Amino acid sequence: MTFSRSRSVSFFILALFAVLINPAISSRASSLIKLPNSDETPDESPSESQVIAHCAAWRLAVETDNAGKWKVVPRGCVVYVKNYYSSGQFDADYDVLVVYITNYAKTIKLAGNGKDAWVFDIDETLLSNFPYYKAHGYGSEPYDNTQFNRWVVTGKAQAFDASLRLYNVLKELGFTIILLTGRDESQRSITEKNLLYAGYSGWNRLLLRGHEDQGKAATQYKSEQRAKVLKEGYTIHGSTGDQWSDLQGFALAARSFKVPNPLYYIA
Amino acid sequence: MTFSRSRSVSFFILALFAVLINPAISSRASSLIKLPNSDETPDESPSESQVIAHCAAWRLAVETDNAGKWKVVPRGCVVYVKNYYSSGQFDADYDVLVVYITNYAKTIKLAGNGKDAWVFDIDETLLSNFPYYKAHGYGSEPYDNTQFNRWVVTGKAQAFDASLRLYNVLKELGFTIILLTGRDESQRSITEKNLLYAGYSGWNRLLLRGHEDQGKAATQYKSEQRAKVLKEGYTIHGSTGDQWSDLQGFALAARSFKVPNPLYYIA
Repeated sequence: MTFSRSRSVSFFILALFAVLINPAISSRASSLIKLPNSDETPDESPSESQVIAHCAAWRLAVETDNAGKWKVVPRGCVVYVKNYYSSGQFDADYDVLVVYITNYAKTIKLAGNGKDAWVFDIDETLLSNFPYYKAHGYGSEPYDNTQFNRWVVTGKAQAFDASLRLYNVLKELGFTIILLTGRDESQRSITEKNLLYAGYSGWNRLLLRGHEDQGKAATQYKSEQRAKVLKEGYTIHGSTGDQWSDLQGFALAARSFKVPNPLYYIA
Repeated sequence: MTFSRSRSVSFFILALFAVLINPAISSRASSLIKLPNSDETPDESPSESQVIAHCAAWRLAVETDNAGKWKVVPRGCVVYVKNYYSSGQFDADYDVLVVYITNYAKTIKLAGNGKDAWVFDIDETLLSNFPYYKAHGYGSEPYDNTQFNRWVVTGKAQAFDASLRLYNVLKELGFTIILLTGRDESQRSITEKNLLYAGYSGWNRLLLRGHEDQGKAATQYKSEQRAKVLKEGYTIHGSTGDQWSDLQGFALAARSFKVPNPLYYIA
């Protein structure tokens, strides 16, 4: 068989991964896909290359939304995620995405009436909170709102090289930039300051969660905001965000682009 | 800056990739994102690790649909694609996907009336045409319908280990299996034979392109077929396909899962 590997290796790896993504599943899964019991000690530890292959597969599942909702980076993939950033692969991924977005943006015939909109998410799309996540287990720790907001109010998040380049290209092409973030209205001032500090300028508006948006799922909140923008007569030619909740729902952009982010998931 | 690399390296790599994905774009892109001209010889050739990083970024763009429509595997990524399969990474990706799908499938409360459907695409989802693509430049050659059909009628395509496992798990769980393929009605018999040869059995129906479906875009054709299935009272709990055209459009499954396939794109 073209793709077959030794069946025992395959089952072992599956069991490893089942435990990796969710310690609760392997006993449930064992009856049907014949995984060894999770409390059985495997005969041999997985090799480094096996761990990398399975963490890469986990990341692909996350980026394609095949993984659906997920809570934290699997413990076994923390080193993998760290290396994903330090190796330059994240930069390469974002660079290539910017080439695709730029090519698409150049094919658009703008109405030129100021109503040609591009929607950007902020965190992990325009601003990097990597220093925070680096200090908090590279996404392996559950989200802590208090601690994260302590980082946000420092206003020191930097731009990604790729996102700053993209932002300026889209601005030069004549798109009206609309920023749509899950951050709270109370963080408007520090967010504006941080964006300017990181090198962004000239956005049309910054939309944050108001009083009436509290408790709404991100997909719902962001869809409602885009719907309001459309109602004002804008065409949303494109949308760029690191979460599937930036890119799904209703009132969608003509094209939506997923920025890589294996650090966290927002429903 | 957390993510910055040397700007000259970054521009060089971008230019490399711009040429890699589309020889026509770099001159158009140069004015805004300051790419060197494509006919300028770079001072140094990209290292192997740079090529791998950028082909990995291309693959991520393809798998997330960020790349949109694409025609062939970039020449510079043929070796990368070959290695993607031979290294076992494809298998790892599909294995992990199967874990996620299985976990999801087990959460579904089946009606148990035979109307709990799961839709599978066939080519590159249940059956591997890898031997054909291996003999035809790993996706770097434009699609040749005559030659591909010559391979199809041999009926010797094999199952992926992962897809056969998944198929049997879903069947055991009680899902009604519906096969939905872009293959032509004239290939019904050989397709059935090939599926049985590869180890699949017990599907409820096999839907192929009929006379009235000729020339329809895959997304439209497949959406229409799913709509008919829904109209018969089925619930489509899940759908599995290697193309975005399997998973977009209307009459969508409750959840859709993208099987990795960096070999070709079907609109």
